[in-house]
Amino acid sequence: MIKAAVVGGSGFIGGELARLLSRHPKISLEAITSRQLAGQKVADTHPFLRGYIDLTFSESITGHGLDVVFLATPHGASMKLVPEIASSGAKVIDLSGDYRLKDPQVYKEWYGHEHTDLENLGRAVYGLNELYWDEIAEADFVSNPGCYPTCSTLGLAPLFANGLVEGGVFIDAKSGTSGAGAELTKATHHPMCGASVNPYKVGRHRHSPEIAQTLTLLQGHPAEVVFTPHLIPVVRGMLCTMYLKLNDDLTKQDLLEMYAEFFRRKRFVRMTEVPWMQAVIGSNHCEIGLDVVGNRNVVVMSAIDNLVKGGAGQAVQNCNAVFGWPEETGLDFPGLGV
Amino acid sequence: MIKAAVVGGSGFIGGELARLLSRHPKISLEAITSRQLAGQKVADTHPFLRGYIDLTFSESITGHGLDVVFLATPHGASMKLVPEIASSGAKVIDLSGDYRLKDPQVYKEWYGHEHTDLENLGRAVYGLNELYWDEIAEADFVSNPGCYPTCSTLGLAPLFANGLVEGGVFIDAKSGTSGAGAELTKATHHPMCGASVNPYKVGRHRHSPEIAQTLTLLQGHPAEVVFTPHLIPVVRGMLCTMYLKLNDDLTKQDLLEMYAEFFRRKRFVRMTEVPWMQAVIGSNHCEIGLDVVGNRNVVVMSAIDNLVKGGAGQAVQNCNAVFGWPEETGLDFPGLGV
Amino acid sequence: MIKAAVVGGSGFIGGELARLLSRHPKISLEAITSRQLAGQKVADTHPFLRGYIDLTFSESITGHGLDVVFLATPHGASMKLVPEIASSGAKVIDLSGDYRLKDPQVYKEWYGHEHTDLENLGRAVYGLNELYWDEIAEADFVSNPGCYPTCSTLGLAPLFANGLVEGGVFIDAKSGTSGAGAELTKATHHPMCGASVNPYKVGRHRHSPEIAQTLTLLQGHPAEVVFTPHLIPVVRGMLCTMYLKLNDDLTKQDLLEMYAEFFRRKRFVRMTEVPWMQAVIGSNHCEIGLDVVGNRNVVVMSAIDNLVKGGAGQAVQNCNAVFGWPEETGLDFPGLGV
Amino acid sequence: MIKAAVVGGSGFIGGELARLLSRHPKISLEAITSRQLAGQKVADTHPFLRGYIDLTFSESITGHGLDVVFLATPHGASMKLVPEIASSGAKVIDLSGDYRLKDPQVYKEWYGHEHTDLENLGRAVYGLNELYWDEIAEADFVSNPGCYPTCSTLGLAPLFANGLVEGGVFIDAKSGTSGAGAELTKATHHPMCGASVNPYKVGRHRHSPEIAQTLTLLQGHPAEVVFTPHLIPVVRGMLCTMYLKLNDDLTKQDLLEMYAEFFRRKRFVRMTEVPWMQAVIGSNHCEIGLDVVGNRNVVVMSAIDNLVKGGAGQAVQNCNAVFGWPEETGLDFPGLGV
Repeated sequence: MIKAAVVGGSGFIGGELARLLSRHPKISLEAITSRQLAGQKVADTHPFLRGYIDLTFSESITGHGLDVVFLATPHGASMKLVPEIASSGAKVIDLSGDYRLKDPQVYKEWYGHEHTDLENLGRAVYGLNELYWDEIAEADFVSNPGCYPTCSTLGLAPLFANGLVEGGVFIDAKSGTSGAGAELTKATHHPMCGASVNPYKVGRHRHSPEIAQTLTLLQGHPAEVVFTPHLIPVVRGMLCTMYLKLNDDLTKQDLLEMYAEFFRRKRFVRMTEVPWMQAVIGSNHCEIGLDVVGNRNVVVMSAIDNLVKGGAGQAVQNCNAVFGWPEETGLDFPGLGV
Repeated sequence: MIKAAVVGGSGFIGGELARLLSRHPKISLEAITSRQLAGQKVADTHPFLRGYIDLTFSESITGHGLDVVFLATPHGASMKLVPEIASSGAKVIDLSGDYRLKDPQVYKEWYGHEHTDLENLGRAVYGLNELYWDEIAEADFVSNPGCYPTCSTLGLAPLFANGLVEGGVFIDAKSGTSGAGAELTKATHHPMCGASVNPYKVGRHRHSPEIAQTLTLLQGHPAEVVFTPHLIPVVRGMLCTMYLKLNDDLTKQDLLEMYAEFFRRKRFVRMTEVPWMQAVIGSNHCEIGLDVVGNRNVVVMSAIDNLVKGGAGQAVQNCNAVFGWPEETGLDFPGLGV
Repeated sequence: MIKAAVVGGSGFIGGELARLLSRHPKISLEAITSRQLAGQKVADTHPFLRGYIDLTFSESITGHGLDVVFLATPHGASMKLVPEIASSGAKVIDLSGDYRLKDPQVYKEWYGHEHTDLENLGRAVYGLNELYWDEIAEADFVSNPGCYPTCSTLGLAPLFANGLVEGGVFIDAKSGTSGAGAELTKATHHPMCGASVNPYKVGRHRHSPEIAQTLTLLQGHPAEVVFTPHLIPVVRGMLCTMYLKLNDDLTKQDLLEMYAEFFRRKRFVRMTEVPWMQAVIGSNHCEIGLDVVGNRNVVVMSAIDNLVKGGAGQAVQNCNAVFGWPEETGLDFPGLGV
Repeated sequence: MIKAAVVGGSGFIGGELARLLSRHPKISLEAITSRQLAGQKVADTHPFLRGYIDLTFSESITGHGLDVVFLATPHGASMKLVPEIASSGAKVIDLSGDYRLKDPQVYKEWYGHEHTDLENLGRAVYGLNELYWDEIAEADFVSNPGCYPTCSTLGLAPLFANGLVEGGVFIDAKSGTSGAGAELTKATHHPMCGASVNPYKVGRHRHSPEIAQTLTLLQGHPAEVVFTPHLIPVVRGMLCTMYLKLNDDLTKQDLLEMYAEFFRRKRFVRMTEVPWMQAVIGSNHCEIGLDVVGNRNVVVMSAIDNLVKGGAGQAVQNCNAVFGWPEETGLDFPGLGV
């Protein structure tokens, strides 16, 4: 058993990490930190963990001889913590936005402050697991992707990697409210969102440049991304419906074969006629479907559990890569369906 | 047209009052106050009112020559405002909890502070419209009931008024989240309540003594009330399922006839086999159904729109009584159904 | 008072028509038909109408001396009924899909059978009220648009009418389940859709050619439409998020001014920063917002109540046009908000 | 590995059984039957099982040398199948209602037909696992309880077993719609239930006598049960709020100690201040809270996942008892929380 800790365990992603790590056959969860809740039982904040996690929140992670540290801290906080943790010899998997954007100018533009840890920014491997397993397997510092970038990029990667996209892509994303986090906001106040689908941050969400960065790398020239997130009245789950033009005459069958090849042997990506969000809830799976409509228009649909494949689950999957275990270790269970 | 104002118009009940009053054929809404939002457009806070309410929030209601003032202020605030408003000659309809409990000791026990306006407390008429129309018609100060007391007392009144209840009553109440108000709370954070039914304040909700007070008056001796509210994942709507023992052998048919008689000519109470919450949403109606189960056990079900009949709608209905108009004036529309 | 009837009143649109017509100050609802439910109380099927509609379902509408007939019948059924009703002298407003597509070949392609009433197809006026008021005012036969075409076309019309669109448009539509009708289906079985957002009929929905037809007319050359409907876990409400490229450098401010001009004096269209679906629920309003993102990309968002503006409400609005009344007659109330 | 089969695998409980058994470390799932779907992939009906269950539905279970058979068949069907399966030597766990009511007269009264397998009815052990582990461990035929009886009886058992209840109990139950099964019904049509809480079968649900039977056994004299189920707009989850009078003066603390003792070493029952349904979703846990209100009134709240602890999970737990494994084998994971 390797020793792990979660830094910043009071939020939803922190709780989900604890939930998954508590069942991981090769990881022992030694500590969960929270400055505000230090000294309190973790299971008081995350009552679903009673009987599974007996830890109290601690202030720091020192003294545990950790092999891996998961950072579930807010952006801005992560980059203050990473240098010291990384120098301790522990592997680091950061779930914040701090190390996702490779260009510090772009980071500053979208996050509103300077990046203060360029050294680790340079060596961070972007943990979109299905695309970068080999690099992640060699890494000791992984930057875990955002939920929207995970869902949308998986759905789009085969098309961009094969250079098939004419112009840009329009991403219409629908997320359950758990994606917005534990902080109370008007947008997630039930009376404001419980009977509605609410767009927000149209064209201004920080996940836009993250998606564009990966698609650009995949196709080898700048990818134009128009990204519109919406909150939907479910707690968990995410669906991205994506629209683009092909630069060639390809049939649905052509594309399905290309996708099958692209995701060959990838345990967590399932091609399907139309994704059913409920089929992936509680699991690390991603369901992808697509259609060709009219003249070279492609609609791609991709569904994940935003807290699992879109967060804690992919972090565990990346940890599995880092330590050389099969990708499904500790994640080998289906979604709920109904 | 008489002149009306809403004091404390930033919350959900304030917005709903404005919505209803904007369509009332005999009332002109002259002012809506909010200390915090003074100077801002009412329709910026309540965007569904664009095109219907062109007012800006004002700081005070003086200078309008008002005929009636609706107080949608929090408890504690109302009793500081009522003396002056009442002395101005305007009729007052208070939607807070300040004047509902007749005994100032009971008020203090449940609201945590002394009552400071005993004079108006003494003369306030409890505005459970179907029960007290005649008194309300004579009043110039009405204390509008809480949402839970409206829903549950309407369902129980015929049984208690006819002295048929053996022992007390158990009230299992389910409310949409709009009943909890506009203030952000963990209980109404969508991720915490959006896929759940959550009991809260078991036996400790301030509406318990309010319900007991009316039932006690109806049956002429102390009524024991056990009241458990739950938040359900809908924005609007309330259902109370209520359980009690009869002290006599009566059939369902006997009870249905008694209810029909009790609510004769009451426009907004509908007897039905089983209430359908959606049938009353957006309307001032109350649907009531009941069954006799086994040995003298009665199950009564009562459904309302918590913001209309459970708040702003009943306030308008009470205003109609005060001014001698038909009860349905400005409220004569059906619920949404689907 | 003019005399009206609803043919095919057992479904959700039929119930909603009855709900609205029961409150219309200039219309007397004389009959509601349903072959299957003939002889039964309308309010038994639509319990929210108890106290408002005392009719029983009838088999036919003959003998009432009707001024206007609303057809809420399925496609295929309407075109069998229209010739006789139209010849009776009554105005006709058809809410089915039978008379929306002007080209009988296109109709056959999408609806799967020949059109059998070419005469009335030729003279039917397409009732997208905000666009064609003048034509509707002259008509005695109106074909009421589908819910998705209403919501999306209103959001797109100013751009297409001004010839500003480069290429086609991607329409990502989210509809409450009431839009799918009263018939039981697996897609609307709560356990399959209640915690999900489910795309369906991707690129194959019958509303696609209807949207394309109007946009084509507006811009004067063929409009390419890619349309993906989704079911969302709300009962009422619809949001369309739409993506396209401008063929010119225009700012958000430019577009907002164009929209304001286009919808000048249109009571039911409200421009807003971001539409809030709940703000229009229960009302005939449409909220539209837009943004320009990156290089000439436009995101337009449009929200309606699918049963009101997307169905029965617009039918009443069209009836108002036909009879020369103000458009808001019988529809002059705001949405629910919370 | 022992060999298991699921008979009647096309429904929600059948799918959930397959989900759980696919991960069970000591069970190999050999066959899943469905007469209607024979020859089709199980994962086509239950798409969340793709990658986990590669079986096709079969017509029968013969020829597998099975050690245990789970019957997820409808009542009426089970009692036709059990005699043959039981005589094959396989252990049987029946999830239908056929063997729950010990008195064939009561069975006939509530299920509407004669019981045709009195022999197995006589020897069936009622699988309310936390109460009857020892008997189940000795059994080769287990009748798995209904979802409502599991949830409510667990919450009430300590009070009834200690003879503390004066009179009967009122059970107000709220269930997610998955409990109603895969069959399409008006009650589970999303537009009818998606924005509502709907009571049904008030006092007439078949789980009433099942609950009364166990409570009667526990207290040693007839228990009066008034049971009102409600459908709530969530897919999974169940909460029972229960009301009764104590026959003695006991404090909340007294009761909590009694419950702690009663459920000592029971892995899946968690005492909590107020149950949070979301905390048990996806898991086999039951959360119980209680309060004493006023004069000897007790409110007990109990929450489960209706498909897991209320169905397939408890069946697996019972299987674990039958084969002498720890109760949490294959079930040792927490609920989702958010």
